[in-house]
Amino acid sequence: MISAGASLRAMREQKPLVHQITNYVVMNETANATLALGALPVMAHAVEEVEEMTRIASSLVLNIGTLSGHWVDAMLLAGGAASARHIPVVLDPVGAGATEYRTVTARRILELVDVTALRGNAGEIATLVGAQAEVRGVESIATGMEPAELARTAARSLGVVASVTGPVDYVSDGDRVLAVANGDALLATVSGTGCMSSAITGCFLAAKPSEPLDAAAEAVAAFGVAAEDAARGAEGPGTFHARLYDGLYALDPDTLDERVRIAEL
Amino acid sequence: MISAGASLRAMREQKPLVHQITNYVVMNETANATLALGALPVMAHAVEEVEEMTRIASSLVLNIGTLSGHWVDAMLLAGGAASARHIPVVLDPVGAGATEYRTVTARRILELVDVTALRGNAGEIATLVGAQAEVRGVESIATGMEPAELARTAARSLGVVASVTGPVDYVSDGDRVLAVANGDALLATVSGTGCMSSAITGCFLAAKPSEPLDAAAEAVAAFGVAAEDAARGAEGPGTFHARLYDGLYALDPDTLDERVRIAEL
Amino acid sequence: MISAGASLRAMREQKPLVHQITNYVVMNETANATLALGALPVMAHAVEEVEEMTRIASSLVLNIGTLSGHWVDAMLLAGGAASARHIPVVLDPVGAGATEYRTVTARRILELVDVTALRGNAGEIATLVGAQAEVRGVESIATGMEPAELARTAARSLGVVASVTGPVDYVSDGDRVLAVANGDALLATVSGTGCMSSAITGCFLAAKPSEPLDAAAEAVAAFGVAAEDAARGAEGPGTFHARLYDGLYALDPDTLDERVRIAEL
Repeated sequence: MISAGASLRAMREQKPLVHQITNYVVMNETANATLALGALPVMAHAVEEVEEMTRIASSLVLNIGTLSGHWVDAMLLAGGAASARHIPVVLDPVGAGATEYRTVTARRILELVDVTALRGNAGEIATLVGAQAEVRGVESIATGMEPAELARTAARSLGVVASVTGPVDYVSDGDRVLAVANGDALLATVSGTGCMSSAITGCFLAAKPSEPLDAAAEAVAAFGVAAEDAARGAEGPGTFHARLYDGLYALDPDTLDERVRIAEL
Repeated sequence: MISAGASLRAMREQKPLVHQITNYVVMNETANATLALGALPVMAHAVEEVEEMTRIASSLVLNIGTLSGHWVDAMLLAGGAASARHIPVVLDPVGAGATEYRTVTARRILELVDVTALRGNAGEIATLVGAQAEVRGVESIATGMEPAELARTAARSLGVVASVTGPVDYVSDGDRVLAVANGDALLATVSGTGCMSSAITGCFLAAKPSEPLDAAAEAVAAFGVAAEDAARGAEGPGTFHARLYDGLYALDPDTLDERVRIAEL
Repeated sequence: MISAGASLRAMREQKPLVHQITNYVVMNETANATLALGALPVMAHAVEEVEEMTRIASSLVLNIGTLSGHWVDAMLLAGGAASARHIPVVLDPVGAGATEYRTVTARRILELVDVTALRGNAGEIATLVGAQAEVRGVESIATGMEPAELARTAARSLGVVASVTGPVDYVSDGDRVLAVANGDALLATVSGTGCMSSAITGCFLAAKPSEPLDAAAEAVAAFGVAAEDAARGAEGPGTFHARLYDGLYALDPDTLDERVRIAEL
């Protein structure tokens, strides 16, 4: 049952460790978002230690935003350790569709790791299901499929919960499709807010691993609520960015469900 | 003709992709500065993908702030792809003069890549033209040449637009020298503002590739205007830093030219 | 003699270069903390240049927060250069106890490098002295020793100044133990504040290399005072984080000693 408030309360009580192998651009941002929300982030990417770190974690977030060979190796090792323990894995296929290397790597992770949730923009997800897509760098420009349909298709064909974020977020397990209408336009003006929503998805999955569809929708809804609060009083992208952590920290389990706008399509 | 407003308007319409191979310290900062200004940043450094990424970009920014072997290889590959396509390339020789490795690498990039604009502090640029220079880490302590003369000399001897930034910025193509008097003293209290000005130079060059001298001067002027706005209401380096992105985002193409202080020497 | 004000004044006059080989998550943060305080940060990790960079620095900070093989090599090379010049070295054993790789690497650095000050949380330091410790990722959960006693034991057995930070910080040279009661609870809500305190320890050691115990205690006290100022007017972790740099910048050598709360146990 969907209750972002209950999941947030559980998360803050359990303080799950969320192991993140992510890109250089947003490491500080996703660590701070995780911590402000109430979970514990840890960043570790050395092949020497990733499996051991994943074995003490409650979920794993893989993000291909600044790839290179050793990092891919580490992601696959950590993904294997996560799959062996059946803990949730989030994949953020940053820039899939922009270069062959990113597309191939995202597909390889999907093939070799038991990915629970795939969180990306429409262009990235469309690329991974073989639909028409235009991705400029890490920005989705156009796709040949409506995002709700794209989420359902990706979930079915890739065997994941697909979370296609944008002005409205669509989250699907291949059967149900949830539309999440929280958020603020300023999110698009700050680099790494997509990566943050993947990290937060990892936090909610850790708190509610048995219901990944609901958890993934709650995650983007809660992040959207924090963004709405951050936008009030922000003077632009920089002050909004700082206030976004304030917003995550201030999320109240008792009132969150009233503010969340999740609709089943 | 110099018009920072016209260049900014063109940039926000075109949303050029600016490929940045930069240092770990400032990646988030230069990505956010690029996005707040109105262009699209992408960070990619793997040798497997840099050429492909550069081929969809409108300009390339190379920054040697945290070098290592693979990154140098990637910079040269991306630089080659940029040169082949005749898109603008900005080089930021962070710390040239502080270690032999940085000096040699900056020279190697200048030799092998068709660098359009070289943006650095006085000590770094003086090092690269063989003038007397003292660089402490990444800070310019002293040089044996006035910065205006240094900009002209560097532009001539290195075949680039040289942008020597400091309390007043001097930008030269070897013939003309433009002095830019925008900015605020708080810029020197935040790490990576030099790197941001290089990224912004890449954005303006993408918007106005045929006039690199003007574009490079407009870039540092626009950044300076944003800094002036950010300083108002800032309580120190941290709040100034957050407000700097607000300032970039709020730059108004209609009024920017009135605020820009560019003088030809 | 303890005087954080005198050390801060000396630091701002000398502007010591503090070479930091640190983790990806906090590089921007520790650079900005160093700069806001009044010293000069430089980040360099390539084996090609670390020794040369350390040879122009006034102190060296090693932080194992996002380890990998080349970085360990670089830390040992830089550490060797620092030991040869007898400049202060700070080690931050981030996550020691969470994985074998981190524990072994921290021990290897302690063995091969002349570490002046070891700054970590209780779980990390307890791990390194072989005491009972629970470390979840990079967070200390529990230890089998009181932190004051732990600081003294670590200092004695490892031959360092040990700085065990937490709600109250304990700093010891194995003989004396200083308790530092400055700080704010919001510090625990921002990722990398421990790393910042290590960087700031490197700054104070550079300003007062002959009295490392006092310098290390002054460092965490000064950071705590800045945090107290930052907390006033902060609305949560994000605005607190921005204001933390304002607080470091605004520290006043003339009044700092009145605000510092250091007690000898």
